[in-house]
Amino acid sequence: MKFSINQKVLMEHLNYVIRGISSKNLIPILNCIKLELKKEGLYLISTDNEIAIKSFIKADEIDKVDVLGDLLISGRYIYDIVRKLNNEIINIEEIIDSQVLITTETSSFKLNCNEVNEFPDIDLEFSKEPILIDSKVFKTTINQTIFATSNQESRPVLTGINFKINDNIMEVTATDSYRLSKKRITLESNINNDIDIIIPNRILNEIIKLIPDDDTKLELHVFSNKVIFKIKDLLIMARLLNGNYPDTNKLIPDTYELVVKVNLNNFYNAIDRASLLTNAEEKNTINLQIKENVMIISSNIPEIGNVEEKLNISKNVDKDMKISFSSNYMMDAIKTFDSEEIEISFNGEIRPIILKYVDNNDLIQLILPIRTY
Amino acid sequence: MKFSINQKVLMEHLNYVIRGISSKNLIPILNCIKLELKKEGLYLISTDNEIAIKSFIKADEIDKVDVLGDLLISGRYIYDIVRKLNNEIINIEEIIDSQVLITTETSSFKLNCNEVNEFPDIDLEFSKEPILIDSKVFKTTINQTIFATSNQESRPVLTGINFKINDNIMEVTATDSYRLSKKRITLESNINNDIDIIIPNRILNEIIKLIPDDDTKLELHVFSNKVIFKIKDLLIMARLLNGNYPDTNKLIPDTYELVVKVNLNNFYNAIDRASLLTNAEEKNTINLQIKENVMIISSNIPEIGNVEEKLNISKNVDKDMKISFSSNYMMDAIKTFDSEEIEISFNGEIRPIILKYVDNNDLIQLILPIRTY
Repeated sequence: MKFSINQKVLMEHLNYVIRGISSKNLIPILNCIKLELKKEGLYLISTDNEIAIKSFIKADEIDKVDVLGDLLISGRYIYDIVRKLNNEIINIEEIIDSQVLITTETSSFKLNCNEVNEFPDIDLEFSKEPILIDSKVFKTTINQTIFATSNQESRPVLTGINFKINDNIMEVTATDSYRLSKKRITLESNINNDIDIIIPNRILNEIIKLIPDDDTKLELHVFSNKVIFKIKDLLIMARLLNGNYPDTNKLIPDTYELVVKVNLNNFYNAIDRASLLTNAEEKNTINLQIKENVMIISSNIPEIGNVEEKLNISKNVDKDMKISFSSNYMMDAIKTFDSEEIEISFNGEIRPIILKYVDNNDLIQLILPIRTY
Repeated sequence: MKFSINQKVLMEHLNYVIRGISSKNLIPILNCIKLELKKEGLYLISTDNEIAIKSFIKADEIDKVDVLGDLLISGRYIYDIVRKLNNEIINIEEIIDSQVLITTETSSFKLNCNEVNEFPDIDLEFSKEPILIDSKVFKTTINQTIFATSNQESRPVLTGINFKINDNIMEVTATDSYRLSKKRITLESNINNDIDIIIPNRILNEIIKLIPDDDTKLELHVFSNKVIFKIKDLLIMARLLNGNYPDTNKLIPDTYELVVKVNLNNFYNAIDRASLLTNAEEKNTINLQIKENVMIISSNIPEIGNVEEKLNISKNVDKDMKISFSSNYMMDAIKTFDSEEIEISFNGEIRPIILKYVDNNDLIQLILPIRTY
């Protein structure tokens, strides 16, 4: 292998594939990035077996191709070296078996490499029926749900996000059994085979850093044990979680005893301030009371002091309410909305609290109350 | 005590005094901020016994003063509460003994307070001969030296910065015995009594966050066991370190075997890249070689690879040189210069390396070499 490439071009693609290398990786070969220099261009591949990333630099973006070939190079070192070089031409050349020379006009690095054939074969195939979705819509959806996934391995399926697709409706769900986030997206076209998969939250966290915040089309290729994301020339493979995701739709009530409308920012700020006088050991519990057209949010730490916040609200029925919940969970949920007002719905103090956009069920945040008596 | 004040005004001053509260403080009373509401305005005071900060808000910046008095209030809580309030009028009132009510139109906090007389008396007196210095010059000087102080308590004086003043020359020195930073400043006026004090690095780290980056005049009031900094209406007291600071001037040679000039950025970047192939366990040692008009910087980790960086230099004599040193120490030292070129001086491979501005001795960085054979 021997080629010359602009530092900026190579860095852009190293920024993608470095995310496929887990810092906790115990298998040395998986700390490497595989470079495949072919006629059509340069492929960069990384994997930790749970995730795989394959990026592609077209031949016309490469300054000079002298010798085609494959190379397995330490991901961390090539990444740091290229990052610290100036924006100039970098020459990369395999000088002897498994040793690479990286040079610019003034710098010269020799790195030992691993045997290319030790790297796992990664099958990044395409399905016949890819699902098309705006990358921005997908990213927003993940951000609106991922915080509600569980980090406890006792119920592995809850550490992932569930994607269900029927016809042209994609329903995205996350829950840690204390709260639940659900988003509904209408796809551009119907699919023939229903989909019901669980993608690990850790992998989705990496994926949303890799996809652009615009209307670039994202292709999802779903298989029985993996999903492939295609964004332009970037391929990302994610292993799926095995198991059945719980049926969460029955948790969301059809009717409510009381629905209030509240200003989003005022509601968030009031809870944020009230949370100052809560204890982590007591799940940062705060109290919410609705009395006529006022919402009172309160909390206290006996030895320190107490707080009371007042907000004006509007109600659908003349009914009062008292309920307690985790202020952190409530703030996480509120942050997923971007409207001026939201709707908060109640069915009594031991039933879930539901947050929604006013007159729109596409995004639902559910929080279980905490009994304080 | 009862008064009303704009959130922004109060926050500015809480930002100052919060720095006087150490997170490691075991004496509960020192986690408090003392408020003294007097006719002339509001004083805010914090201390951890090593540092004390006193800020002052003039009466005409306070919206309404109803009842004068003193109050001792949890620093962390008042800081967080005011930070999370909107920019609006905040009412602060002692309602019963040692309980304060903090209200805005919609928020209401009650906090328990401590007894005011439990707070230590802090004597923030002024000396007859304050030293005047631009706050920006002082801040730059600390940043150019503080990294060379020691963090090891085995030689306590080295954990501070030494300030020596004779006539109108202030000499500022820091060393951890492996490297040394020295800065010379010419003061506007002579002082009558020589000064030789050591200020702890931890306190200076807080102080440089408190002083503005402009030509505001800083007053230093020096006493036998403390120094008071006065910046406008802000007073900062720092306890001095006891002991004699070593005489470091004899460590800096008068003559050099070889002086080279090198481009600052190129030199820094070359060392930064070469440091990628060094080991922390071996003090990140790199090698520097001067051969005719080229400087070669090299390092290697046998199992990973090696690096060689080349730079053009100019020399005062036709002499070559080989020396090794810590790349981290060298980068710390280079970062203190802001010129295009610097001068690097050598007296052989086991003698200190000296960095200076070209033809200017006001800032000196000294690094001991590492024997590699």
